[in-house]
Amino acid sequence: MPNPTAAMLVIGDEILSGRTRDSNMHHLAGMLTRHGIEFREARFVADDHDMIVAALNALRGAHDHVFTSGGIGPTHDDITADAVAAAFGVNIGVRDDARALLAARYEQTGGELNEARLRMARIPDGATLIENPISAAPGFILGNVHVMAGVPAIFEAMVASVLPALTGGAPLLSQSLRINRGEGDIAGPLRQLAQDYPDLSFGSYPFVRDGIHGAEIVVRGQDKARVDAATLTLARLFPEATA
Amino acid sequence: MPNPTAAMLVIGDEILSGRTRDSNMHHLAGMLTRHGIEFREARFVADDHDMIVAALNALRGAHDHVFTSGGIGPTHDDITADAVAAAFGVNIGVRDDARALLAARYEQTGGELNEARLRMARIPDGATLIENPISAAPGFILGNVHVMAGVPAIFEAMVASVLPALTGGAPLLSQSLRINRGEGDIAGPLRQLAQDYPDLSFGSYPFVRDGIHGAEIVVRGQDKARVDAATLTLARLFPEATA
Repeated sequence: MPNPTAAMLVIGDEILSGRTRDSNMHHLAGMLTRHGIEFREARFVADDHDMIVAALNALRGAHDHVFTSGGIGPTHDDITADAVAAAFGVNIGVRDDARALLAARYEQTGGELNEARLRMARIPDGATLIENPISAAPGFILGNVHVMAGVPAIFEAMVASVLPALTGGAPLLSQSLRINRGEGDIAGPLRQLAQDYPDLSFGSYPFVRDGIHGAEIVVRGQDKARVDAATLTLARLFPEATA
Repeated sequence: MPNPTAAMLVIGDEILSGRTRDSNMHHLAGMLTRHGIEFREARFVADDHDMIVAALNALRGAHDHVFTSGGIGPTHDDITADAVAAAFGVNIGVRDDARALLAARYEQTGGELNEARLRMARIPDGATLIENPISAAPGFILGNVHVMAGVPAIFEAMVASVLPALTGGAPLLSQSLRINRGEGDIAGPLRQLAQDYPDLSFGSYPFVRDGIHGAEIVVRGQDKARVDAATLTLARLFPEATA
């Protein structure tokens, strides 16, 4: 049975302007791979209602799970929750349980639960809350879409809390070999190997280091014995390869 | 006149598996912003012909310029050039000038221009080559799509060679203020400011550092005097703000 598939939608002008370097996609990629969910596609869009709605509807139709990052804070450019509601065609409003989480938080810290902060309690109808152990403002799950914060520490905490509930497949195992030869010398034997092991995937990732052209070859699959056998064959073809 | 818009398509399983952390999007984002081209959207897809074709056709129809990264090497998983040809509905084959670039290179380095390496001379009909000063294998431009290598050093060299030929708009100027207060305290005044300066954009990027919640507010626009005036107003509203 093929593993479930996932996509990610990262929302925010700050990444596309070059101001901020995203780290959430890389984090999610590692977590999904370990959980046996195949990460097939990611999109980054600006803070634009129509673009968010279109991307959400494309991704949630094409994949088992969708994870979003960003745009759920209290400021005017935080428009993700409304876009998710629009994508699903449901209403959105302040919800009592979300408001209670925020009220408890600001009572503790002495902050004021003002109109802006109350925006973070606006949850689309039918959603389930995702806990935010760091700053209380919750994420939420609607259908197969997991809506999470953009601040990396909060995003990572939310991923940790939702992932165990998702059914994963067999984790994808991998072995890699580093070969200090141009990819063009490796490509022929590698193509043959890929034909001989159609159940595995073979990635070739070239690098240039200190003027030397080489490639890291990554063998991936769900069956450890097969991954090991293919890696061994490759190592025999290129005796200079190192793990 | 609005600035031209751009999108990026990053192709490769290695990023979605969490093995490699992409750096090309962040590099391109900074370069486009400085060149006055608005970076609106990025997509990351697996090494999958149909996904690449669909993403390319969506992006090239929606934006003035599209930049791709990855999948133009000699190995079996390098399928970008064929996907671009399919997206445009044109033929692809080994082209003499591209072959000559590779032949000259391998004559110099003593490598063999074998069948795998010759794949890198396959160019869709009607394309213009992009120089690769590092390993010779060229990228290419077809219509509004710029097809470039995934290896960061080569990607960056190719961006540097194509960007000057593209008409940019006025560079987007920005000023930022760091405010050590929760976003919820800033959101109200910031929303008012965004209404008073509809020609500018106001981003709020929250952070948690040493247990302190704060936000960096970034004011962006094309008119320096307006950006400065809005930033000054914000600084007066929050005397604790630092540049």
